[in-house]
Amino acid sequence: MSSTNVGRITIHDVAAAASVSIATASKALNDTGRMSVETRARIRRVAQELGFRPNALARSLLSKRSFTVGLLTNDTYGRFTLPVMAGISEGLIDHGVSVFLCAIEDNPDLAKLHVDAMLDKQVDGIIATGRRIDKPLPVDLSHLPIPIVYALMTGPADAVALVPDDRQGARDAVNHLFDKGRRRLVHVTGPASFKVVEERTHAFRDALATAGMTPSEAQILTGAWSEQWGREAVEKLWSQENPPDGIFCGNDQIARGVIDALREKDVGVPNDVSVVGFDNWEIVAEQTRPPLTTVDMNLKELGRQAGRALVRLVNGEIVEPGVSKLPCTLVIRGS
Amino acid sequence: MSSTNVGRITIHDVAAAASVSIATASKALNDTGRMSVETRARIRRVAQELGFRPNALARSLLSKRSFTVGLLTNDTYGRFTLPVMAGISEGLIDHGVSVFLCAIEDNPDLAKLHVDAMLDKQVDGIIATGRRIDKPLPVDLSHLPIPIVYALMTGPADAVALVPDDRQGARDAVNHLFDKGRRRLVHVTGPASFKVVEERTHAFRDALATAGMTPSEAQILTGAWSEQWGREAVEKLWSQENPPDGIFCGNDQIARGVIDALREKDVGVPNDVSVVGFDNWEIVAEQTRPPLTTVDMNLKELGRQAGRALVRLVNGEIVEPGVSKLPCTLVIRGS
Repeated sequence: MSSTNVGRITIHDVAAAASVSIATASKALNDTGRMSVETRARIRRVAQELGFRPNALARSLLSKRSFTVGLLTNDTYGRFTLPVMAGISEGLIDHGVSVFLCAIEDNPDLAKLHVDAMLDKQVDGIIATGRRIDKPLPVDLSHLPIPIVYALMTGPADAVALVPDDRQGARDAVNHLFDKGRRRLVHVTGPASFKVVEERTHAFRDALATAGMTPSEAQILTGAWSEQWGREAVEKLWSQENPPDGIFCGNDQIARGVIDALREKDVGVPNDVSVVGFDNWEIVAEQTRPPLTTVDMNLKELGRQAGRALVRLVNGEIVEPGVSKLPCTLVIRGS
Repeated sequence: MSSTNVGRITIHDVAAAASVSIATASKALNDTGRMSVETRARIRRVAQELGFRPNALARSLLSKRSFTVGLLTNDTYGRFTLPVMAGISEGLIDHGVSVFLCAIEDNPDLAKLHVDAMLDKQVDGIIATGRRIDKPLPVDLSHLPIPIVYALMTGPADAVALVPDDRQGARDAVNHLFDKGRRRLVHVTGPASFKVVEERTHAFRDALATAGMTPSEAQILTGAWSEQWGREAVEKLWSQENPPDGIFCGNDQIARGVIDALREKDVGVPNDVSVVGFDNWEIVAEQTRPPLTTVDMNLKELGRQAGRALVRLVNGEIVEPGVSKLPCTLVIRGS
């Protein structure tokens, strides 16, 4: 809690000490909003006792802000959205900001209804996120009267967007396989229509070329995002001459299927073949035998940075538009 | 969309036709809130053109309501919360209600901050949900000035709460094993400290007793909620005389571990042993070999009913307090 940070008393401390919300404290100190005379006087007294002194900038902001950020998503499964949300919350908690998540389906009318509800609630800004980096939400946010940041989604050309650096993550995965002495590499990944498949495949080819190899199309197998596809890919690869000694998988479920199929063929992982996944979905990666080495997209950090970018926009600061790519991290386990 | 339902024009239709939010339409028609004279006139014109006629009750509600429901959760993983949220949204969409999710950690100060933010936003009511049925949220909601409904959580004694009927679900699972001709049953489940473990274990014992058997403690194995524990349990059971021919697992991950371990022992599922899980976590259940027969807690339906109960409370109707248990469904797959 920032109340232990005696050097600088924030609106958060005043709100906590007066047992009111940040927004109520803000209104009391700015003589705006509706509340009883007693409440307003009490909050001002608490602020004075704590020695709260907003600077001029903060004062102007306090009067305008609602200390709420809306998070819009169409990822109803939540696997990607919830870590992003946790990061936004963590990054903004010192600012006393609450994050409200609103899940929209792919119905534009309903999406508009929910966006309007957020505007009605006077959120300070909206972070848009979703299931797929390459699929926009079914609602145009570009003309809203509040700042918008896109997280795990690219948005329009002049928008502020943050996405994981898929190519760097994939490159690290392939280089890890090289470091393990693997030379016969294949990439088993999801449907070719996904942007992330394109990005990771590009990085796979690039890393091979950089290592002086000539990547062939036979080394890239696209299919479903599922364990079953991972198992099928192993069947296919081991029915041919000269099977691979290193497999980079497009997600952790494919990697799980690959490793299960190899074990059932008595092919040792990591002794005979090294396997790397993508996502670091811990519930899968940690239970794989051996535990899965995989690429973490650092979604929590991405959320944290998206939240901070939004606060800068809300504060009227300039944030360079365009897509920022944030680094992925290779998490090395046993595979 | 209800706009096709020409027999009854709702505030939703007016809002959609006027391209404003439900709350704005409501304010325009009730002469409350702030908006330009032009906007108010336009919305009223649209309402008239559509033939919108609120009845007396609706009129009184329209003037007071914000058409937003807050959903509080401490389930940051979201596996249980997101289906509940989807159900609430679906159940309330005809009422033009948006659901805002706010994730709270186990820090009471921060939880209070977020609850205050929801009150500030004048949500019509709050639905509380979480990771565990038997662990309350770190904030007392019982004295808030708005209605509260607990979903997948019991709450205080006089609260309206909805939880899955764990005993009935477990009973159905055990009876399914009996129907398959299985008689040597064991229950492999999670940590004994969980209420759901207690409930499902109770139902397991009960079902055995009803079938004229005397359940022994050796038939109940508690451990972690993990695949690894499922595999360990199989090692243990198959190192003893007379291993089981039917295994009821406390969740799908344990069941996944059990089935993997049995396959590696060349014990046939479902030929030699039948296995039933709990949760119907599709990403696990469908990829298990064979696909897993498991109990679905119908969380979406639970969310839908929680949303409706909240709307009734918001409308001033009486909702019987207490814990309602909603039926679970056995989903039969191949195991």
